Amino acid sequence: MTSIYLNLIASALGSSREINDPATLLQSPADCERLVQKTGVHSRPVAGPGEQTSDLAIRAARKLIEVGPYAASDIDTLVVCTQTPDHLIPGVSSRVHGALGLAENCCALDINQGCSGFIYGVHVLSAMMRGGASERAMLVNADTYSRLLRSDDLTTRVLFGDAATASILSKVPGGFRLVSSRCYSDGTGYEDFVARGSALSKDEAFATGIHMDGANILRFALRVVPGAVADSLRDNGLDASQVRMFAFHQANSFVIGKLAYKMGLTPEQVPQNCAELGNTVSASIPLLLMDQVPSLKTGDRVLAVGFGVGLSWATALLEYSEPGHTGD
Amino acid sequence: MTSIYLNLIASALGSSREINDPATLLQSPADCERLVQKTGVHSRPVAGPGEQTSDLAIRAARKLIEVGPYAASDIDTLVVCTQTPDHLIPGVSSRVHGALGLAENCCALDINQGCSGFIYGVHVLSAMMRGGASERAMLVNADTYSRLLRSDDLTTRVLFGDAATASILSKVPGGFRLVSSRCYSDGTGYEDFVARGSALSKDEAFATGIHMDGANILRFALRVVPGAVADSLRDNGLDASQVRMFAFHQANSFVIGKLAYKMGLTPEQVPQNCAELGNTVSASIPLLLMDQVPSLKTGDRVLAVGFGVGLSWATALLEYSEPGHTGD
Repeated sequence: MTSIYLNLIASALGSSREINDPATLLQSPADCERLVQKTGVHSRPVAGPGEQTSDLAIRAARKLIEVGPYAASDIDTLVVCTQTPDHLIPGVSSRVHGALGLAENCCALDINQGCSGFIYGVHVLSAMMRGGASERAMLVNADTYSRLLRSDDLTTRVLFGDAATASILSKVPGGFRLVSSRCYSDGTGYEDFVARGSALSKDEAFATGIHMDGANILRFALRVVPGAVADSLRDNGLDASQVRMFAFHQANSFVIGKLAYKMGLTPEQVPQNCAELGNTVSASIPLLLMDQVPSLKTGDRVLAVGFGVGLSWATALLEYSEPGHTGD
Repeated sequence: MTSIYLNLIASALGSSREINDPATLLQSPADCERLVQKTGVHSRPVAGPGEQTSDLAIRAARKLIEVGPYAASDIDTLVVCTQTPDHLIPGVSSRVHGALGLAENCCALDINQGCSGFIYGVHVLSAMMRGGASERAMLVNADTYSRLLRSDDLTTRVLFGDAATASILSKVPGGFRLVSSRCYSDGTGYEDFVARGSALSKDEAFATGIHMDGANILRFALRVVPGAVADSLRDNGLDASQVRMFAFHQANSFVIGKLAYKMGLTPEQVPQNCAELGNTVSASIPLLLMDQVPSLKTGDRVLAVGFGVGLSWATALLEYSEPGHTGD
């Protein structure tokens, strides 16, 4: 089977920052302390005034082209994964395509997925590449959930950060080789995480904005993530000790801690970066991979695990190669 | 290369109907007559009160499972193409997945594309199937543009119909074999067709709803469609006379007529069905294919061409086999 590589990732954060403190949240110092303690989120990047998802997406995509091995005109497929587009019609991918001056024969489209969206994007694009439809693809993950948070709903408001990443996938060795991926869905959990009044549904019985059933989402994560990890390990004839790192979606420290405990993973196997980023939805796993690259050696296995709204979850087993290393 | 087949299509129309007449449009009989004459659209299905895109999508998907060869649990990948979702978060695919009781190991996601969305969906799914990620996929194309039309903008209001189709793609011969496909984009034309105030962009300078620069869109279609058709014919060593039928996106009769004239196609090669459907966005090509099946014979080539918002366009060359015919 043709090997597909995640060669490079670039990022862009919302240009403002919100701190989970009494002045911002209008809560007592003790309550803020408790929230920060439980979630592990101290502060979060948020989109500045007038800053849209397309602005973050374009910034990350430009950076990727500047530092990466390919010219904009080399990209044959662009997928933008977002749930917070500027408009329903057209998609953010059109804005990115236009701003970067991508080629007319580039296949550009948005996909809608949340916290599993990075792996969904990698899964779709890598399959398309193996199927002969793409040689050099760009995957952008960009969201500005802050625009849909309800200021009085602390359970969600303290969690989400606005960010974008742009990633290059190609058949040229370098970075992370995709060993295998799997995607899962459970649409019966649709109501557990909904942005009410966000598109065409009127939702008159609800306040506009994100509504999360935190208890259900936690139960869901604790139910499905260990099973999906077990599937991936079994697919690849591995046990957990042979995986250097589990790149969990950075929902928050509480959820990640529960998952690690349930699966008997060591803290060294479960890196986190949500303290100053929060939950950046589908950008969270690529942001974590960027952070962790300096600590990885050629041959290290990373199991990335996304889970969240939909309900939807996915795993991707990756194998890292240091720059300059060209073997599989 | 593994052959991929579009085995079967099912559809669902908006449960109300709007007639382009003086009572509905509040225009003089002469003006209505002129509009109907030019666009070729007499009436259009529109979503009924409370009817959402997910309702149409689920109805079409259920019908496909009822009449088709596969159980819901056989579907391993579900793509819903829509630009008018119930919510930004989650996607319509979650609702379809839950309502049909699809399997947990089904990869379910929305893609956002407009009038090129059927071919984009076929392009992505067929490549994924060739790449080993899917054996039996469902593509749903569903939109309720009527919710975003401005009642005072006759240039768009008389055109769009609300509908959904659900299609099965598999490696099992039957129906339309996908010979080749190509997707194109030009994001510099983003502003030519925008649903203002539809998602997170405030767009305070505009009335909420769909804004189309009709002259630019027409110029775009006349520029890119003949080139894309030429690419597909050249890819496959064919000339236009060897194509039984050009399944153009049913934008409206005026645009289709102009395209046919420019390319020197016979009326028999360019079927239309927009008189009582209008422009059903990404469902228009599969609805036309359903209509045309009775007139097709084994071996007939159909070149499907989508074009529109984004700007985005795409072609797919298909070869028809009558039911019971199992050869390639």
